[in-house]
Order: sequence, then structure tokens, then C-alpha cells
Amino acid sequence: MLYKKRTHTCGDLRASHVGQSVTLTGWVDTRRDLGGVIFIDLRDRYGKTQVVFNPKHSEAIHTLAKELRTEFVISVSGYVEKRPDGTDNSKLLTGAIDVLADDLTILNKAETTPFPIDDKIETNEDLRLKYRYLDLRREPMQKNLLLRHTMYQITRRYFDEHSFVEIETPVLMKSTPEGARDFLVPSRINPGKFYALPQSPQTYKQILMVAGYDRYFQIVKCFRDEDLRADRQLEFTQIDVEMSFVDESDIQTIVEGLMQRFMKEIKGIDVAVPFPRLTYKDAMEGYGSDKPDLRFDLKCADFSTLVKESGFKVFTENVKKGGVVAGFAVPGGAAYTRNQMDNLVDFTKSLGVGGLAYIKLTEKGIESAIEKFLGNDVCMKICEAAGAKVGDNVLIVADNWQKTYTTLGTLRLEIAKRMNLIDDNKWNLHWVVDFPMFDYSEEEKRHVAMHHPFTAPNPEDAHLLDGDATKARARAYDLVMNGNEIAGGSIRIHDSSLQSKVFGLLGIGPEEAKMKFGFMLDAFRYGAPPHGGIAFGFDRIAMLFAGAKSIRDVIAFPKTSSGVSLMDDNPSTVDTKQLDELHIKLK
Amino acid sequence: MLYKKRTHTCGDLRASHVGQSVTLTGWVDTRRDLGGVIFIDLRDRYGKTQVVFNPKHSEAIHTLAKELRTEFVISVSGYVEKRPDGTDNSKLLTGAIDVLADDLTILNKAETTPFPIDDKIETNEDLRLKYRYLDLRREPMQKNLLLRHTMYQITRRYFDEHSFVEIETPVLMKSTPEGARDFLVPSRINPGKFYALPQSPQTYKQILMVAGYDRYFQIVKCFRDEDLRADRQLEFTQIDVEMSFVDESDIQTIVEGLMQRFMKEIKGIDVAVPFPRLTYKDAMEGYGSDKPDLRFDLKCADFSTLVKESGFKVFTENVKKGGVVAGFAVPGGAAYTRNQMDNLVDFTKSLGVGGLAYIKLTEKGIESAIEKFLGNDVCMKICEAAGAKVGDNVLIVADNWQKTYTTLGTLRLEIAKRMNLIDDNKWNLHWVVDFPMFDYSEEEKRHVAMHHPFTAPNPEDAHLLDGDATKARARAYDLVMNGNEIAGGSIRIHDSSLQSKVFGLLGIGPEEAKMKFGFMLDAFRYGAPPHGGIAFGFDRIAMLFAGAKSIRDVIAFPKTSSGVSLMDDNPSTVDTKQLDELHIKLK
Repeated sequence: MLYKKRTHTCGDLRASHVGQSVTLTGWVDTRRDLGGVIFIDLRDRYGKTQVVFNPKHSEAIHTLAKELRTEFVISVSGYVEKRPDGTDNSKLLTGAIDVLADDLTILNKAETTPFPIDDKIETNEDLRLKYRYLDLRREPMQKNLLLRHTMYQITRRYFDEHSFVEIETPVLMKSTPEGARDFLVPSRINPGKFYALPQSPQTYKQILMVAGYDRYFQIVKCFRDEDLRADRQLEFTQIDVEMSFVDESDIQTIVEGLMQRFMKEIKGIDVAVPFPRLTYKDAMEGYGSDKPDLRFDLKCADFSTLVKESGFKVFTENVKKGGVVAGFAVPGGAAYTRNQMDNLVDFTKSLGVGGLAYIKLTEKGIESAIEKFLGNDVCMKICEAAGAKVGDNVLIVADNWQKTYTTLGTLRLEIAKRMNLIDDNKWNLHWVVDFPMFDYSEEEKRHVAMHHPFTAPNPEDAHLLDGDATKARARAYDLVMNGNEIAGGSIRIHDSSLQSKVFGLLGIGPEEAKMKFGFMLDAFRYGAPPHGGIAFGFDRIAMLFAGAKSIRDVIAFPKTSSGVSLMDDNPSTVDTKQLDELHIKLK
Repeated sequence: MLYKKRTHTCGDLRASHVGQSVTLTGWVDTRRDLGGVIFIDLRDRYGKTQVVFNPKHSEAIHTLAKELRTEFVISVSGYVEKRPDGTDNSKLLTGAIDVLADDLTILNKAETTPFPIDDKIETNEDLRLKYRYLDLRREPMQKNLLLRHTMYQITRRYFDEHSFVEIETPVLMKSTPEGARDFLVPSRINPGKFYALPQSPQTYKQILMVAGYDRYFQIVKCFRDEDLRADRQLEFTQIDVEMSFVDESDIQTIVEGLMQRFMKEIKGIDVAVPFPRLTYKDAMEGYGSDKPDLRFDLKCADFSTLVKESGFKVFTENVKKGGVVAGFAVPGGAAYTRNQMDNLVDFTKSLGVGGLAYIKLTEKGIESAIEKFLGNDVCMKICEAAGAKVGDNVLIVADNWQKTYTTLGTLRLEIAKRMNLIDDNKWNLHWVVDFPMFDYSEEEKRHVAMHHPFTAPNPEDAHLLDGDATKARARAYDLVMNGNEIAGGSIRIHDSSLQSKVFGLLGIGPEEAKMKFGFMLDAFRYGAPPHGGIAFGFDRIAMLFAGAKSIRDVIAFPKTSSGVSLMDDNPSTVDTKQLDELHIKLK
């Protein structure tokens, strides 16, 4: 099809273009027929421009324009004219002008779309995903993808400026499931053998340090075959970083510089560095989370010593068993009705603890069902420890350390939401450090790595690996933004024997270690430098910067929570011939 | 382990640093013990620096330095001193100075490496791949990966400057095998269903044009489960580009700008644009190839009309059958010995044609075994048509069009190599255009797409789709550099009914088309703009710029020709439990 190519985009024209002959191409966004004169807004990625079809100017073109409907694709030529006084549209960058059409080619017609191409639509997400090409035409989605584009460029420019080398690591890698499940890819040439898609390029980036690349980065797709939650995808994007001859501070400094640049170039906000560091212990005991949202306060306090001699058995026996009694003050929470409190208690019980106690501090003094057990004095001391003022309400949980604080952490977020304590314009960035090396999994009866099996222990705690390993702290660090873990990393083990010992603690015996990670243990025997790194959840960061509710809104072609792409009906069945060639069959 | 962090890299220090106290970290590259004083070259990614351990300066450190062996990783501190006159090493950027050591920490020891970390090594490639972390320490490999890094940055900066949007497309996509085989990924959540790894993001990028993104690019991993040749990998990297409201020239101009920038920033060479355009027909009939190397001449000529009335049956009957008699003149080829000619004839026969005729033009006139059939006059005319001068030798092949020219193309390259006609410092870039839409596959008894099923026909030839479709030209174009196809693209079909018709010609019936590409046909019904694009073979271009013999030398972790990663023994067997979860079993 022959047509006039555009001279300008739909976002270009200004008053200074008046009198020029131009050609625009794009989609018919809206169409109005006013007393014989047809007005359309023509839309492309760059903006919208009003085009006028006037039969007095060109009868034939006006007639053709009657065929136009929304989402038709056209090429239109005409003269730029100033809009009549008072009809300017200050909402459009091109609102000072319109184009008086004298030529028109319909490049493609469009059927009525299943939902309107509007900024705000009340369409269920499945329909949006099925017709993703229409959903992606909407301005909020275009803004999100352009934000991602900007983030890619900022990231790579930043690391390039800092002498990092971008290196692609394989997608068809070795299956070494540790934690999450691997996606497997059968090999046609090697019957019975499988590749795996990377959960992360962890081993490769460490190998690159052994190979002397010193500073590596990559924006890379990673894969986890796990059941999907709202903010997860089977495939996700990671900014992957590794450095040699460094300690934690070197990596944190590099990361802080990138976050400063993101905040400045995307949000126009200057953030101060270094970001605050919280230990894992302080984060848990202060905010009940290893990724606390510090945009609001509601800080927890430990009441265990205050209550351990009290007459309230629930508390005293919990403390005796090594548990913790802790809580936080809700400002103005003394005004909670009986109904509101019942609701909170139910919510707390649903988190798996026995109950929720509370002490209201009112003008008249303590109001609490447990005052009769604790006594007024202990209640007052609890209020003091929690920093409660008159009008506040101290919420209290008693269970083991882990359960008490994670419950309080969830409760804290719930209260903040209910009481609208979170300022969406605030950006809080901080580090959580000194994570434990291991969790003990009751289910698997073994230690599991809190970060991953390659994380180095804190040298001060190295001796604990031969004793109570769960007490050993790791050289791991997470970056938290507004209560979201957006990056996590560690200083790695670079010594073959220490790595073997940690594998052993994780229940990976010498045989299995050799089979899965033998090449790394080998590599460490030929001169491995001290090294460490970090990985950023790119989709999550994009979602936060976009102010989006779901990572699906910052991914061009996401999958549903059942791993399905609704647009192209993927995954799908395949020919038996294909399976035969891959030496597999369906079970 | 505690150690002093570096103050400089091993490439930093110059005469201006003399007298400063510094710390360097890196690998012991070489070690010499000269009369009690130990010299090492310390190496990192940035360079090498000579470090001197002198017992007179520090006895203890000198003693420790005796333990050093090549590839040990160390941190060393000392004073920068000017080298004694006459001992400067002008080959090293740091060759004016050395560092007199007064502190040393051995960060990691190294066993003797299986091969030396030298620029040139005579090691078989399998050993290099098994110990890839050592191979990647060698300077030629580091240069190659740094070249790739530079190419990534140039590419993205260029497309960003030209308003292209970088968008990630899914890796877990729909299986639509067309041509090459798909890699399949079983879905755990959707039993019996499979994802496929993308052979290219072709459908997604076209969908992005329908979605209005106008200019898209991505550097993206693609996958083809095909038997590997020397310059292929199962996974490979592509620069992927698509544009809306364009014709061939718009895309070619954008591509030429990128290639200009590559040539300037990587090779320091200014190349003129636009690049020459050769039609497919002219490329085939002139050089026997659709990706001719134009760094040398050896242009073919068609002798069919000259010989069709001759007395040489081999020629006349071939022409009668619709075949071609063609060839080219080899400068100085009249000097070929009988033995050399026999060898060339054998080489030519091995390509699958009946034989090779030749006519030498000497001082004494024609020397040719076929002169007695053709007559002197026709021989002279053939020499004239081939542009042969005295001393040249015209090589002649007679077969059908396809076979004649592809044979001459291979012969042409072989002669150029044997006669050393290719100047490695020359860079030749040109387009091949006007490819046919279809090849007819005798094997499959159907048309196959020469480019891919989404390629638009030349509007002048659109009527041929209803007749002799093999005569129809496509709006496809390849970019050729030094005889390598480095990019290929086309203007796409953006009309649902034309797309269906082309599917039909390719033997993809309505049912199959709907199942595999229904979403694209659907998308075209909601306002698809005219669009087109191109994809570059990133690995191939990197290989050419690096002057490497194999793409494996410009890929950090390549696989062998049997698809195996020797370093980590990948692919590998997996647990039955893993297969159970994926609802598959081994055949």
C-alpha cells in the first residue's frame, strides 16, 4: 500500500508550525461530527493532534473521513492552523493548533475493540491480557513501559561509567535445584539429559570473578517454577552485579549510587547516602519484619522482662519457655471501639498466634482486660516502654521470638493501612544486614541457607559453623524500599574448603556437591579472589516507581497466576513428533 | 580474611605516582627470583604491574614472597619507585615504575593450571572450555568480552537516541515451529502443556507495533535446537528491531547509522552511507551467493547465449533444458598447473555438479580442452565476456540456475582463499534486496518462506501470489559484511487477509493458522499499522570485529557442537521426582 509517510509525530506540532504542510500517521483516538465538520484526535506514542475535515476545504476527503472509526490507522496530510481563540486545549502539548486535512489514506480499519482505549478502564484483567495489544495502547501502560526503558538505560550507563563489564551468561544452564524448582529443557542431542533455565546466574557470575573480570553486571531474565503470588512471575528480570576485592561497603556504595540516580532521574528526588543500616535483629525486634517499611513508625518494644514476674500466666509461661512478649503503641488507638478491637483480635489470631492483648491509655488511666492480672503498675510500664501517649493503644503479642515479631510485623502494616499512616510520596531506603547464615527447617530436618549456599559467614562467627550454626551471622545484606526487598546480596565464599563445609551444613554431601557444584569448587583451587555481589528485582522496582499495583502492569507480556499467557494461549500442547525427538513422553 | 584493599588497579600506575604508597590486588602473572630479589608481574583486568620483593627492604615480606607461584591471588602494598634507567618496559603502560613491596597478603593459593594463562596457547578447545575460568583470564578473551560490552553500550545508546523503546519479550513463549526446531519447556502447573524458547521475538515485536510502540529494540537471547555448525550456538544473541509507518529505506537508514557507529567506535573507520544495494538476482548471478564477499572481484558472467549454438553438447543441452553456463576469470590463472587444475575440478565436482570447464587465455591464445567443441571464436567471446586478460583462466560451470551459481559462489571463495585475494583490513558492507518470497521445497512438496511467513510481498508482484508464487519478490533485505549475513529483515504483512493467504501458500491451513497465529490475525483486525524490522546476529558481528575464528571465542560460556557445556557438565540427568512434577517421563 502506498501512502504518505509522516513528516511529524502526533506530539510534535506547536503554534510555531502554523502554516506548514504536514503529514501525520496514527490511530483515530476520538471522532466527533459537528455540523458537517469532522474532528478527530489522532494518536500515536508521542501524543495526540486534532485533525479537522471540513467539506468546504476538501469535499472528497471529508466524505472519506466519514468512514473513520476509533482505532482506524490512517495517514493524513494538511495545513497546520492556529485553533480559533478560546478553543485551545491546554491539556494537550499540541493543543494550540489543529491540522486542516486535505489528504487521507486509511491504512487499516479496526473492528470495535472489546474495551475502550482509555486511561482508566473497568475491565477485568483477563480480558486486558487476552487483548494485550489493545491494553498496551493505553497511556498508563505506555508510561510504564517507557519507565522501564528509562530504567534500563540508567542502569547500564551507570555500571558502564563505573567500569563494570556487561557479560551474558547462558540461559541453558545446569540443573541444581536449591530452594525453588528449576524449569527443565530436554536435550534432543543428549537423550535423557536436561538443561535448566537459570534461577539466577549466581554460579556464572562467581566464575567470572575467578576469571578476573573484577566488576560484572547484567540485566538478565531469571526463572522460578513456583506457585505464583500477586507480585511474582515465572520469568522475571534481575539486575545482576558481582565485584572482586571488595567488602560489603564497596557493594553498598555502588548500589546507593544507582538508587540515587534512579530517584533523581525518575522521581526528581535527591536522596542522601549512605542509607541507614539496620541489623536483621533490630529490624525484626523493632518492626517485626526483615524488610520493614520505615515510612511510618509503630515501633515494637519488648515487654518480656516487665511481665515475667506478673500474675498473667499466658505471659509468664511464654517468657519461661524462652518466648517473647512484645508489642507497639497505636497512636489514637484508645478510641478503637469494641467492634474494631474484636476485628483486630480475629485478624491477629488468623496469623497463627493465640490472641492479641491490648492496653488503652486514656485520660482516665489504663483500660485493659489484662490489668487485673498485670496490675496497674506493669501496665503503665508497658505503656511507657511502648512510648504510648494518652489516647494510644498498646497491642501485645506473646509467642516464640519468630512468631511474636512476624505477627507484630503483619499487624503493624495492617494498622498503618487502616489508619492511613503511609505517605505515598515518601521514599524510604535502607539496608538490612547481619542476617543469620541458616534457618533450621523442621520440615526437612536440616539447615537451609537464608540467602544462598555461597554466602560467606561473618568472620567473627566462623567458629559457630562447628557449633550452633544457626547463631552464625552471614555477610548478607538486603536493600529495602518502602517495605519491599528490592535487592539482596552477600560477600561470597571464595575458599574451596569453607564452601565444602557450608555445603555439608546444608545437607549437601561431598558426592552431591561434586556433581552439582564441582566446577566451582575446582575453580576455587586456581586462584579465586575475594568477591561479593547483589541482585535487584527489576520488575518490583519498576512497579514501585510506576506506582503500579501489580508487576503485571510493568511487564509487556506477563503470565497469569497459573502461568498462562492469555493472548496467545501459551503454554500449549505439542506434537508427539516433537516429544519423540526430545526422548520424552507425557506421563 | 582481612586484607588491605587496593588503592589502584594494576593498570593505573605511572611515573607521576613515584613516591606514593599504594596497595594492589591481583593474580601473580610471572615470578622471577634474581639473586635474592624476587620480581613478580601482578595482573588484573586493567593491566600488569611489576612488584619487587627485596630482602634489604623487608626481610619478612621477601620470605613470604618466596611462597608465591603463578595465579596466586594477593594483596601487596609498597612504594612506587622509578625503574632504574634502561629497565623500563615500554610494552606495559605501567612500565616506567615498579612497586617495592613492604606488605603482602596471600588471599588465595593456586594449583598449577592445566594450561598457561598466555595470549597464545596451543591447547585443544575442549580443555579451554572445561577450564573456562582460566581461558577467560587470557588477554585475547578479555579483549573479546570487553568488545562485546562496548557493542552492547553502543547499540543501546544509538537506539535510545533515536527514540526506540527497549522492551523485554517473554522467554517462555508459544511453540510455533516453522523451519527450525523449538526448545520445549514442560509446564508443571499445566500438565501436558509446554512452553517454547523463542527462535526470535518476531510475533511479539509485531504485536508491539499493533500496540503502538512505533520503534522497538531489544538485545535478546534466541534459541534454535538445530545441529550445530562451527559458527552456531543453541542460544545466540540478536539485536531485534521493529518500526511502524516505514518502508525499507527507513529501516536501512537506521541500520546504516548503527553500523557507521560500530565501525567508527570499534574500528576507527569512517564508512560511507548509504551502503550499496544488490538485488538477490544480481548477487547470485554476479557472485554466486546471496551474501557475496565483495572485498574481492572475481565476478561471474553468463555465457549461455554464447554457447547455446556451439558444438559442445554438455553446454547446449544444458541451455536447452533452461540451465545456465556461467563462470568467472581467475587473474593469473593461466599459470595453473595440470595438477592444480585437476584439484580444482575435483573440488568443483565435490560440490555436486558434473564438472568444471576452463579456458586459459595465454600469449599464444586460447588453451582449452573444450576449444575443439566450441571453436576459437566462441572461446575468445567467453574470455571477453568474463573480462579475462592474457594470463587469466576462465572457469566455467554448466547446470541449472541455482546449482551453477551456488557452485560458482563456493568456487569463487575457494579461489580467493587460495590466491590470497582477501584483504583482512577491508570492511565491505552492502545490502541484498528483492529476495524471492518463497523457495519450493521438493522434499516437503510445498512452498517454504525464504525469510519468514510474515514478510510482505513486493506490491508489484502481489498478483503472483495467485499464480506462480515462486516468482514473487519479497520486501526483504539482508545486510552483508565481508561475505557474512549479519542482519536480515523485511517489511511485514499488516493485513489479516493477506497474512492468511500467505499462510495458505506455505501449507498452513486455516485451522493450523488459527491455532498457532490466531492472536496475530486477531490483532491485525484492531488497527495494525504498516511496519517492518530487522534482526542482527550479535555474536557473528562481534566475531568479525574481534577477528575471531569462531563465535565461541566471543561468548563467555559457549557450548560445544554437541550442545554441551564442558565446564559444568551440562546438560545433565535429573531426578525422577523432577520429571514426575513436570508430568513427563523419559522415552
